[in-house]
Amino acid sequence: MTASVPFSKEYARVATEEAFAIPEMLRLYKELLASGTHDDPGFQSLWGFYGGSPSARATAIYERLQDLDARRIGDMDATGIDVAILALTAPGVQVFDAATARTVSVQANDILAEAIRRHPTRYVGLAACAPQDPAHAAREIERGVTKLGLRGVIINSHTRHEYLNDRKFWAIFEAAEALGVPVYLHPTTPSKNMVQPFIERGLDGAIYGFGVETGMHALTIITSGVFDRFPRLKLVLGHLGEALPFWMYRLDYMHLAGVRAGRYACMQPLQLKVSEYLRRNVWVTTSGMPAAPAIRYCQEVLGEDRVLYAMDYPYQYEADEVRLSDAAPMSAATRRKFFQTNAEELFGFRVQPRA
Amino acid sequence: MTASVPFSKEYARVATEEAFAIPEMLRLYKELLASGTHDDPGFQSLWGFYGGSPSARATAIYERLQDLDARRIGDMDATGIDVAILALTAPGVQVFDAATARTVSVQANDILAEAIRRHPTRYVGLAACAPQDPAHAAREIERGVTKLGLRGVIINSHTRHEYLNDRKFWAIFEAAEALGVPVYLHPTTPSKNMVQPFIERGLDGAIYGFGVETGMHALTIITSGVFDRFPRLKLVLGHLGEALPFWMYRLDYMHLAGVRAGRYACMQPLQLKVSEYLRRNVWVTTSGMPAAPAIRYCQEVLGEDRVLYAMDYPYQYEADEVRLSDAAPMSAATRRKFFQTNAEELFGFRVQPRA
Repeated sequence: MTASVPFSKEYARVATEEAFAIPEMLRLYKELLASGTHDDPGFQSLWGFYGGSPSARATAIYERLQDLDARRIGDMDATGIDVAILALTAPGVQVFDAATARTVSVQANDILAEAIRRHPTRYVGLAACAPQDPAHAAREIERGVTKLGLRGVIINSHTRHEYLNDRKFWAIFEAAEALGVPVYLHPTTPSKNMVQPFIERGLDGAIYGFGVETGMHALTIITSGVFDRFPRLKLVLGHLGEALPFWMYRLDYMHLAGVRAGRYACMQPLQLKVSEYLRRNVWVTTSGMPAAPAIRYCQEVLGEDRVLYAMDYPYQYEADEVRLSDAAPMSAATRRKFFQTNAEELFGFRVQPRA
Repeated sequence: MTASVPFSKEYARVATEEAFAIPEMLRLYKELLASGTHDDPGFQSLWGFYGGSPSARATAIYERLQDLDARRIGDMDATGIDVAILALTAPGVQVFDAATARTVSVQANDILAEAIRRHPTRYVGLAACAPQDPAHAAREIERGVTKLGLRGVIINSHTRHEYLNDRKFWAIFEAAEALGVPVYLHPTTPSKNMVQPFIERGLDGAIYGFGVETGMHALTIITSGVFDRFPRLKLVLGHLGEALPFWMYRLDYMHLAGVRAGRYACMQPLQLKVSEYLRRNVWVTTSGMPAAPAIRYCQEVLGEDRVLYAMDYPYQYEADEVRLSDAAPMSAATRRKFFQTNAEELFGFRVQPRA
């Protein structure tokens, strides 16, 4: 770690994609990996590494994920992060059977709510849920928001190789839209029917597979008509939108060409262009992408109200990257939106003076 | 088609990713599809559509691909394209058995060379080859360049689900580097162990799967050390680099993190950062991406000598997109590089006055 970063006087830094884990979930991950009963090679690769590698990277992350008090707050202080928006780390409960997923999601939300009570000026939380049981998930999202004060929902991409374009999951979107809170679609490793070529090349994780998996998932949500059915639904993507903003022109052109040609039964006309949903229903955060040209590109094509700062703690805990984000060229007004007020608006909270 | 675009007086427009097909290859595609003996669901989806759909899009493209004379030249005239760099359309010969692939690649190169002889001021050609037989491929590339006057090599991504990171294919890179001509890594549908989730959602083709497949392939070439072994090798990517320029920061960070942690045996230290290979060994073209912000982004992060115009004829034959490319904000000097001189330098030819 290089020298610490002071808090800014001009804006509060709200980091919007910050991960935690509860010990019980990590214990169940180890059990699942050891049992050999899961059929998810991506999960094996991801948590075989973070839960089993003796490397400095894996062990530091494994420890930091589980701390919701002194160590995490100390790390935030050292990098000038005023507020962390916390969410259960990937793949969350989405690798478990439905019963386990229900139990662990409730437990995680309770633990998160307690941590926020202990550090009310420093944490905002997103609710975990068990898409394996969409009705339970919808109720848990409602409990999370109305009873626990959580401000959105985290979905760690596929749930046992199923994607949210499937209408059986749409109770989750219905709940989020009704409550006015965003769904954060976070990466996990690609699902079993696509992950093999990535694993063979060491590309299944954050280097590339995460973006492919989550970009495909988000695009699938758009093309399946979710936003025609739920026009006020808010979707958040990390990693500057998992490259969908880069692909925007091509997505529009090829979606329209495919629909006109009647190529796929599953691809029907939409009310808007793909890019119009990206600008209306999607927000992006900078997790893992503190690169000024990419940030500016996204501000240009999506609008400066749509791009939010994120650190991706503890996976990318780097003081130098806070400096890079600070130095990204934008006006003082835009910078305040980027670091603070876009997050306040989107997640519906106000930064308070630090305790 | 909207009104035609006049030729520019300030620069020649060189379109660098323009596709053709020979009738024999398309006949063999139909035979292969009908036989049910191939194991490539992506190929089935792609050529089941272009070879079988009665839609206006599929039939027009199917016809235009096979014309190397009046219709193609007329279309170029109508959109102000001075020179087309022609390459055998995806998946080329890469779906065939080795013997068929050898035969068809030679035949395609001969036909292409004849077309260039008929239209020497309008066409430049890239050689097809059969990676199924790397030694033959290397010899055919040499024949294409030294005997037929072709100016590079087209590889339509995976060859029967194998990728060029495998050292058995490196004779292709060796030949291209020795001859000083670029390898154009063009998309095809994702390979069989990753394509299923894309097909189920209508996303296996140009809308998304092409970019994922080809981005992964290019990244795999970089991370396997190809450019350490062949430092003067030139790689061309369409679609503005298949989003790798967008991911540049994350590729560097996560590659280094993975190498340091020793996570994958296949991922060893490289001499340079991933982004440094992108800037040293890779050129990108705008096929399918005539979007000013994305073009400018790539010019910024790769350098203005690295970004070339392409139309993607006949898949994206749009006069309005030539206008969009013309209007992308850049200086007159940069625009000339973008449309003309970068292509002349990279492929080693000079635009001649039109006949």
